[in-house]
Amino acid sequence: MGYPRQFVSLIAQLARLPGVSRRGAERLSLFILNMPDKSAKSLIKAIVSAREKVHRCKQCFNLSSAELCTICSDDERDRTTLCVVETARDIAALERSHRYRGLYHVLLGKVSPLSGVGPEDLTISNLLERLKGGNFSEVIIATGTDVEGEATANYVARVVGELGVAVSRIAYGVPMGGPLEFVDERTLGKAVEGRTRIERDDKSKRER
Amino acid sequence: MGYPRQFVSLIAQLARLPGVSRRGAERLSLFILNMPDKSAKSLIKAIVSAREKVHRCKQCFNLSSAELCTICSDDERDRTTLCVVETARDIAALERSHRYRGLYHVLLGKVSPLSGVGPEDLTISNLLERLKGGNFSEVIIATGTDVEGEATANYVARVVGELGVAVSRIAYGVPMGGPLEFVDERTLGKAVEGRTRIERDDKSKRER
Repeated sequence: MGYPRQFVSLIAQLARLPGVSRRGAERLSLFILNMPDKSAKSLIKAIVSAREKVHRCKQCFNLSSAELCTICSDDERDRTTLCVVETARDIAALERSHRYRGLYHVLLGKVSPLSGVGPEDLTISNLLERLKGGNFSEVIIATGTDVEGEATANYVARVVGELGVAVSRIAYGVPMGGPLEFVDERTLGKAVEGRTRIERDDKSKRER
Repeated sequence: MGYPRQFVSLIAQLARLPGVSRRGAERLSLFILNMPDKSAKSLIKAIVSAREKVHRCKQCFNLSSAELCTICSDDERDRTTLCVVETARDIAALERSHRYRGLYHVLLGKVSPLSGVGPEDLTISNLLERLKGGNFSEVIIATGTDVEGEATANYVARVVGELGVAVSRIAYGVPMGGPLEFVDERTLGKAVEGRTRIERDDKSKRER
């Protein structure tokens, strides 16, 4: 194609990144080539520094630059509730909601027989040890709502339930902030099933 | 959000890249963090090496690791035809079509009053010098079909025309390989205007 070899290599490297198409990689490569020296250095430094300094919290497997992450080492968090998620990005998303004050446990993936990922490849044994050693009264499962996320939720619910700890699942329903017509029928079905009664004193209570 | 500082920096750096959303940057950062050492080193090496070795062809402004790019230094290319494009990526795209054997000239952008880019910010003066010094019989303009690409084409056509060199524009029309119903009306209009007569001997000729 007339591109110099080093440029083709850069495109190939960038095209391996998730969500980056061949075209996107070409565009990124040209952008990186045209960057001022200072910006290029900052980019590389950010990559190197993140890889050097950021590891996994030894307790919950969240991202952390210390042995324990900022959440695990925060004394103000509720240490009786544990929320189980697939990735550290899910923690960031839940934290943005400002509605959860307990601790987390990152599974580092989901059960996926097609990709050869079984429960033993996740941090489930660490989770069970944590529950045995801690004083948890509830485990909230917040895995994804795809088939694999559901399978993972079911598995975790079973093994955690065997320890006698109460297990819950975050609510399924219609996402906030948009017209109903764009919501898919599976979500709508779940939203109807999980409807909550509107009490006269304005406090809502889940209908069982 | 509970992310370590170095991870937040990496997200910020990646979110500056074109076509990378905040979410995409988060995903990329996590991927980069989880990469094997060897892959991370290859990625960084590709960035550094491309920035070090790849420059602009001093004649046509295509990407090149030598003074002249592979196209300018290819003796088999037709040196009487010059195709004017906005970026080096357009050259790659045209080369993939295998229908053009002449030389190129990269403008390094397009006229865009809103972004403060005037003709003097492009490589148009270099283009005119090249035309004066060369033996070109035709200049084909292959800028984009957005408003700014059109304005650039008009400007280039005028200044090149003043040198007495024949100027043409690549054809507008319906893209290949899909049903007509998905083609927008502006393109369809251009396609009708630019229709070519189908001769009985099967050789097509543009209708004037």
